Amino acid sequence: MTSRVSILGTGLLGASVGLALRKAGFQGSIIGWNRSAGGGETALRMGAVDALATDPMEAAREAEITVLAVPIFATLDLMERLATQLDDEHLVTDVGSTKLKITQAGTEHFNRAGRAAFLPGHPMAGKERGGAELADAGLFRGAVWLFTDDPGAVRSQRAWELIKDWRALIGAIGAKTLDLDATRHDKLVAWVSHLPQFTATALSSLLEEEVGAAPELKDVGGRALREMTRLGASPFSMWRDIAHTNSEAVERALLALEQRLAYIRENLRTPALREEFEQANRFRRE
Amino acid sequence: MTSRVSILGTGLLGASVGLALRKAGFQGSIIGWNRSAGGGETALRMGAVDALATDPMEAAREAEITVLAVPIFATLDLMERLATQLDDEHLVTDVGSTKLKITQAGTEHFNRAGRAAFLPGHPMAGKERGGAELADAGLFRGAVWLFTDDPGAVRSQRAWELIKDWRALIGAIGAKTLDLDATRHDKLVAWVSHLPQFTATALSSLLEEEVGAAPELKDVGGRALREMTRLGASPFSMWRDIAHTNSEAVERALLALEQRLAYIRENLRTPALREEFEQANRFRRE
Repeated sequence: MTSRVSILGTGLLGASVGLALRKAGFQGSIIGWNRSAGGGETALRMGAVDALATDPMEAAREAEITVLAVPIFATLDLMERLATQLDDEHLVTDVGSTKLKITQAGTEHFNRAGRAAFLPGHPMAGKERGGAELADAGLFRGAVWLFTDDPGAVRSQRAWELIKDWRALIGAIGAKTLDLDATRHDKLVAWVSHLPQFTATALSSLLEEEVGAAPELKDVGGRALREMTRLGASPFSMWRDIAHTNSEAVERALLALEQRLAYIRENLRTPALREEFEQANRFRRE
Repeated sequence: MTSRVSILGTGLLGASVGLALRKAGFQGSIIGWNRSAGGGETALRMGAVDALATDPMEAAREAEITVLAVPIFATLDLMERLATQLDDEHLVTDVGSTKLKITQAGTEHFNRAGRAAFLPGHPMAGKERGGAELADAGLFRGAVWLFTDDPGAVRSQRAWELIKDWRALIGAIGAKTLDLDATRHDKLVAWVSHLPQFTATALSSLLEEEVGAAPELKDVGGRALREMTRLGASPFSMWRDIAHTNSEAVERALLALEQRLAYIRENLRTPALREEFEQANRFRRE
């Protein structure tokens, strides 16, 4: 059984992982590190971590499993630094929203003789605002937790045991694990996650110009408008890295949606509109 | 006080109005009529109406206030038929989602000497699926109920009293009333209601093509995807009339969103993306 976990980055996801592990009965120690001291202290106060480290390398060296829960470029930076710090009795995993670049970095820096294991992960859960103060032990309940493991990984027996433990812990916190290829992952999430986000951002930004000066008019839209723009609150700091590391797939998805909206616009009074509604209805069939 | 209300169309909205009036303590009778017998019987069984009429004209003649709760073109048909059936001691009101054509029909057929009063109304509440069986006494709680009254209306004292009663009942069922000009209404709802709907339809229809064959992948999108596509279940039968009666404003809104998405697509790796996120964040500021 794993007895020592470190969480590098105790924002919404990192602190939620800590709280969820505790709630699921994880008995080992959880050490946190956060770039800004305030976020770390909030996570400590909430019981998401047992202690705070001042050096992420040291926290990782002392843990068996290290969870990287920072934005994608920061994840890539930490991976490079951790590669030479850890031996093959360690597992490093992450929660980044795009997986091809991170999985490639894992192959480059980990997953070979003498190096730590790296298991690329991506929980499909979050909130439209970040920060440890919004962390929630139930965030991953019912969510899908994707893994895009490296099929050519070379690992010690202990590293494989740690991977098995981590997968079991993910199940224990209520998530369903699903394995897929990193390239396929990035294409898939461009459709089911990144496109919805950029659509909500575009819609919210447009509506801010059109009705932002009359906030009472937002109420008019009711629940439908609130839901369609909730993700408009999402922080650029997180989405910048996603936009940079999955540009091609996101561009393709955005262009397809532009074309679909234009088609609807040109067919508001033709029978083609019925077909669009019926196809949309099929997506939402139970 | 109003003692007799008829509800023509006992689908989701009509039956919810009946249930909400009862819950708010309305003591008078509520007579329902529905084009299909099944929907009427469901509303009767739920207690949304006290009795069912077989002829909508007769139901309206016997009521002081008649609520039209059918799609827009059916509303326009009923208005034309009711015009010569009712004297100036009656009020007719509606719940249609576009208001210019209905308000104009009200001026043409009602709101003059000897004719019934017509008060155009639009509750900003609903569900993505229709039908009496989904009716809910709390549907209008906290929602905005828009009125686009005809400023040149000529009405009897009794008709003005009925209007005052109806406005008070709308407040009693938990909605906030807001008055605005019909043209302005249609432009506003194109942005805050119709654009979100057609966006959800476009996104759902597109995703049905891209990932519909692998339903387990829908789970991957989690809450964000569910919310962004919930309205994809909305029925064409209702939205066809909206598309037909507010085409110009909806076309303008759709084109603006297409352009906004294209701008984001072209700027996934530039600082302009930050500005879009920040403007979207402002729309969602508390």
